[in-house]
Amino acid sequence: MTENTAKTAAILIIGNEILSGRTQDRNIQYIAERMTQIGIVMSEVRVVPDIPTRISTAVRDLSDAYDYVFTTGGIGPTHDDITADNVAEAFGVALEENKDAVAMLKAYYGAEGLTKSRLRMARIPVGAQLIPNQVTSAPGFIIKNVHVMAGVPRIMQDMLTHILPSLHGGAPILSSTVTCELTESILAEDLTALQAENPDVEIGSYPYYAQGNLGVSLVARTTDAERLENVAQALEALVEKLGGAPRRLDMVSNTADAV
Amino acid sequence: MTENTAKTAAILIIGNEILSGRTQDRNIQYIAERMTQIGIVMSEVRVVPDIPTRISTAVRDLSDAYDYVFTTGGIGPTHDDITADNVAEAFGVALEENKDAVAMLKAYYGAEGLTKSRLRMARIPVGAQLIPNQVTSAPGFIIKNVHVMAGVPRIMQDMLTHILPSLHGGAPILSSTVTCELTESILAEDLTALQAENPDVEIGSYPYYAQGNLGVSLVARTTDAERLENVAQALEALVEKLGGAPRRLDMVSNTADAV
Repeated sequence: MTENTAKTAAILIIGNEILSGRTQDRNIQYIAERMTQIGIVMSEVRVVPDIPTRISTAVRDLSDAYDYVFTTGGIGPTHDDITADNVAEAFGVALEENKDAVAMLKAYYGAEGLTKSRLRMARIPVGAQLIPNQVTSAPGFIIKNVHVMAGVPRIMQDMLTHILPSLHGGAPILSSTVTCELTESILAEDLTALQAENPDVEIGSYPYYAQGNLGVSLVARTTDAERLENVAQALEALVEKLGGAPRRLDMVSNTADAV
Repeated sequence: MTENTAKTAAILIIGNEILSGRTQDRNIQYIAERMTQIGIVMSEVRVVPDIPTRISTAVRDLSDAYDYVFTTGGIGPTHDDITADNVAEAFGVALEENKDAVAMLKAYYGAEGLTKSRLRMARIPVGAQLIPNQVTSAPGFIIKNVHVMAGVPRIMQDMLTHILPSLHGGAPILSSTVTCELTESILAEDLTALQAENPDVEIGSYPYYAQGNLGVSLVARTTDAERLENVAQALEALVEKLGGAPRRLDMVSNTADAV
């Protein structure tokens, strides 16, 4: 509903460790929340294995389809870190030993500590812009609309902090959540009517199961604060009418305190 | 590396709530772990919004590309639950009010409680096989190689329990993890050599950041227990040689205790 005019983004997670179930992903929600705060609509997430053609194809497809792409994983010094190679491949550019990246690594490891393996982390596609990393110094990079970041959440978050000011979003997407212990099926008919009466506000119904009980979170989302308030009040009234006890939580984000 | 002959699978998450950052996904790791245990290689995950063409296109693409597809989300009674419609659309079949699904819902809600909204959950593509749900009674379904499940983790897990015996995997993918506080860049050169010497065992290097320290988990994966043991011991020796203290964790799963 909000995909027509707003800026869009996708996340590409390069990670056998996510696909094997070894690691619980912690990056999707973090990036998605920040995009929502600055009015960029997260439109797709893909997780692909550490296989060269899978990475380059996904980079190309997502770069064509969305305004911004964020990748995580595969930019370290080991044999299975092949993201830079395949992002370069996706755009038909060469990899080079980036002088600024070498300087960053040298400042961190010292000239003597800058081994061949560590120098591997300075291999950056020609024409890319570096993303600083204050945790381990090894930079990410931006090429076209693709932002290549580390997979370790703490490092990814530091890189994203550097990127955020350069992204051009729209009005922040505001949301208001009304939670109650009614089941979805009791609310469904009235919700359908409410959504039909308010086509400009996206109304989502998200059931949950906690401590043996089902409940539901009704979420209204729009960039218009007044319209949000109207629909949130209507959701509260609807829950009360059906005998529920609504609990309301508003998320009023803005770019200033996004990070 | 393991994608040639083994059975493959993909997960399709239908969920605005994941893309907005409102909800932390809990289904990817759960499904991925169980597939690994029964020797099915999880090859892709996609998260798409609740937009009809996005769902039907992703269902078709993933169904064509992989042996098994698992979808989560969008099968409840509310206006934003549109998965059944778009899976039917993807395969060019009609939706019908499935008699068995109606019977399941009637047993749970009673004849009088079976409202129009609840009956919505009995709308199933023609020819699909139902997946029981012991939590809320509303069934998922299987059509071709696509397994359509609920998004609420507790319900999805119950549905997956019913599906697992019908899946044909290969030998369980065994893994052994050697964790240490060395940094990746110290290990990189030896790891590259070890991987080159053992092309039949997938060796992954996954850095982590915990309590202010970087460390790394070295993960060997193969279906061959003896080869796994060889490489795991080589990883331990490698860490010790470089001055680290290896901690080893073996994951020896099998189908019998997968759930």
